[in-house]
Amino acid sequence: MLRVRGAPLIGVAASQMVGKLALEGLSKAELLKSARDLYEARPTAVNLMICIDRMTDIIEKGASADQIAQLAVQIFQEDVALCDRIAENGAKLFENGDNILTHCNTGGLATAGAGTALAVIRKAHEQGKKIHVYIDETRPLLQGGRLTAWELQKLNIPCTLIADNMAAHLMSLKKISKAIVGSDRIAINGDFANKIGTYSVAVNCHYHNIPFYVAAPYTTVDSKCQCGAEIPIEQRVSTEVTGYGATQWAPKGINVYNPSFDVTPSKLVSGWILDRAVYTKSDIEKGAFKLC
Amino acid sequence: MLRVRGAPLIGVAASQMVGKLALEGLSKAELLKSARDLYEARPTAVNLMICIDRMTDIIEKGASADQIAQLAVQIFQEDVALCDRIAENGAKLFENGDNILTHCNTGGLATAGAGTALAVIRKAHEQGKKIHVYIDETRPLLQGGRLTAWELQKLNIPCTLIADNMAAHLMSLKKISKAIVGSDRIAINGDFANKIGTYSVAVNCHYHNIPFYVAAPYTTVDSKCQCGAEIPIEQRVSTEVTGYGATQWAPKGINVYNPSFDVTPSKLVSGWILDRAVYTKSDIEKGAFKLC
Repeated sequence: MLRVRGAPLIGVAASQMVGKLALEGLSKAELLKSARDLYEARPTAVNLMICIDRMTDIIEKGASADQIAQLAVQIFQEDVALCDRIAENGAKLFENGDNILTHCNTGGLATAGAGTALAVIRKAHEQGKKIHVYIDETRPLLQGGRLTAWELQKLNIPCTLIADNMAAHLMSLKKISKAIVGSDRIAINGDFANKIGTYSVAVNCHYHNIPFYVAAPYTTVDSKCQCGAEIPIEQRVSTEVTGYGATQWAPKGINVYNPSFDVTPSKLVSGWILDRAVYTKSDIEKGAFKLC
Repeated sequence: MLRVRGAPLIGVAASQMVGKLALEGLSKAELLKSARDLYEARPTAVNLMICIDRMTDIIEKGASADQIAQLAVQIFQEDVALCDRIAENGAKLFENGDNILTHCNTGGLATAGAGTALAVIRKAHEQGKKIHVYIDETRPLLQGGRLTAWELQKLNIPCTLIADNMAAHLMSLKKISKAIVGSDRIAINGDFANKIGTYSVAVNCHYHNIPFYVAAPYTTVDSKCQCGAEIPIEQRVSTEVTGYGATQWAPKGINVYNPSFDVTPSKLVSGWILDRAVYTKSDIEKGAFKLC
């Protein structure tokens, strides 16, 4: 059961849990065991590993419960600040009249702060730019249709919900001018993993000469990961594809393939919007992500 | 409410209805009015127009009720034979080891006979070729997840159901060797309309150098249609995208775009599998479809 989702929020939430357990008086060994279990809960988003590594590090060094809880709060606050900086950096790339395609959910429901890709969109809107967003519904779990649609509606940002397979058709009609997505893990060569369907968006943007951006905090860059092929892809249960929740429409017993993420190669990305800066292919080739 | 779907079957079913009304004793004027109403029921699939034109033609010429009903039966039988010839022609393009992507439903549930694209797949399987099919679920109405999955399961053809946005990821992993789809209308330059999402499949096939075929009877070629831009695209209700049937997951009031079809340009097509032959781009440039 997915109760917490969104790469940054998974890392933040796991840290809060370790902090809470420290305050509840768990022993050092128990805390390390809990941290290890959380670390292994989801394989693709690296934010989880990076946050838990920080928590584990101070537990191993003998930090007090208060110090452990304080680090969890700090990780939460850092994520809020990272979102703000991503939004500031990314909003510069958008302008009046943009029709922006986004995939999955990357807003306040996916981070501790305003979000990543959706925070960029929100900031451009707050700056008074007249933009409109096409929301991929993002099968199978419909994070676009359920969550992004809800967030954009609350923010009064003009938007239109589509099925994932409609985006290319809109591009052929020149109805989409830019695309922006989040990420669960970025390799140092710029390849990145994100919600399944992101790669199809990237290929279609490439074919239609539409700029395709990825937005993420530096905590999404995995400095140990050389390229996208090294990123493990979580496989999920078939009932997510044979229906939605209790509504099941496919015939019983049908074979299903259900990867939760896919990898988009660096060559299809127009810019990497991070909290530190917007990076180009040239920056990455010069090793910008090796410093993260 | 869609009770009959699939371009060939829409034409066949409408013809049967006119034949039935003739046998029930409707006047010539009443029959012509009914035929006109049926003609206008769906805008994209040309098979409907072509079949109803044939029925209207003999009604106007003063044919008897029996003659009108007989033409309806003939149209049904013709469609069965067309499916068989499409299957024979197309199966030659598939071979042992093929992993075939298909979109929407193009089998026995979409035609009077064995189908179009799915009949090709079925014939290749019956010829003993070891093939495997990836089925796009085909949002929003899930004709792949509901109907194609059911048909392939009944036929014991190895298959795997995926969400539409997973196909490109499979292509990047080299898990798809060919794609085949049906069509609702083919222009004489080879552009064609088909279920929404077909264009995205075509673009992704192009990017990954995967052969992309369209299969249809000659009744799908519209000799009055010069190119894809002339094909009207049916727009459908928003509740198909905000959920599925009674299960509605998107926030109330969200704006929706829901085209039922898209147009794939000739340049992305590797071959047009018709009942008469498999046509190449060169055949079409020489005017092969002007004779349909």
